Amino acid sequence: MFETRQGETLLAADPAGLRPDGHVVFIGRIVSPWVVRDECPKNMRAARETGRAASILIDEPYRPGLQNLERASHVVILSWLHHAPRNLIVQKPRHAAEPKGVFSLRSPARPNPVGLHVAKLVALDIEAGRIGIDAIDVLDGTPVIDIKPYYASVDAFPEATIAGRDEK
Amino acid sequence: MFETRQGETLLAADPAGLRPDGHVVFIGRIVSPWVVRDECPKNMRAARETGRAASILIDEPYRPGLQNLERASHVVILSWLHHAPRNLIVQKPRHAAEPKGVFSLRSPARPNPVGLHVAKLVALDIEAGRIGIDAIDVLDGTPVIDIKPYYASVDAFPEATIAGRDEK
Repeated sequence: MFETRQGETLLAADPAGLRPDGHVVFIGRIVSPWVVRDECPKNMRAARETGRAASILIDEPYRPGLQNLERASHVVILSWLHHAPRNLIVQKPRHAAEPKGVFSLRSPARPNPVGLHVAKLVALDIEAGRIGIDAIDVLDGTPVIDIKPYYASVDAFPEATIAGRDEK
Repeated sequence: MFETRQGETLLAADPAGLRPDGHVVFIGRIVSPWVVRDECPKNMRAARETGRAASILIDEPYRPGLQNLERASHVVILSWLHHAPRNLIVQKPRHAAEPKGVFSLRSPARPNPVGLHVAKLVALDIEAGRIGIDAIDVLDGTPVIDIKPYYASVDAFPEATIAGRDEK
């Protein structure tokens, strides 16, 4: 699933085996339509194009933290991509001509496997701990470590570019 | 520094003392102009308004991961706000009339203290592990856990709103 390809580089010390500098607790799980890897959209744009909504189920102790989240039209979700290897520092994506550094990629395989997803907030049931969102690009059951309101003033850079990619 | 205010709610079990579900390793540190809390800008907009640039110093083993990052005009930085308490589930920001759930706030005090910052990439020295950015809103020395390229296609929502805030 994450075989090493030509041109890739592994870290000498796998972060999965290093002494922790900090620890995370899972605050909930993503409920998504995607149960097998082949079906799972590769990014949020592809996820939206499927027209399939998703949700996040927040564990009971953390539900009071959802108060007032309905103020936000969009939310940032930080997930924990716990199945991904953490030692692939230079990677060769399947459709890329050359290997690339992990920090120039949105690959789930990274030293700290934190996924970043911006989604539209479509429903909120605080008592049930359920956040409805327009789409998600991760497998059902993926752990969540944080939810933040999206602030256009500091988070939106529509003019951002990626050279060599079809990004505006 | 993080005294409990009227209307705030603490978690029964402090995530700082819970059994870890996952662990993070620090991949570097933020080098910022801000060494005392009172000077530190409260958000990235305020940080930009100071006109003071900043940088990120990536530790040696992780520097090969910076290859090709120069493709990106903007980067997402995930920091680890290790001085913040993790058990404040409902918070009363100093200038807010009412307490609010942590997931509706960008407070550094949250169950998993991951900070999210989008910055303009202004310089990159892979050999030295230095990423120059236009601004940052955290104290000098703050640990970094991830760097991602910013993709306008999935990260930019200029139309996002926060009800009751001066957010477009």
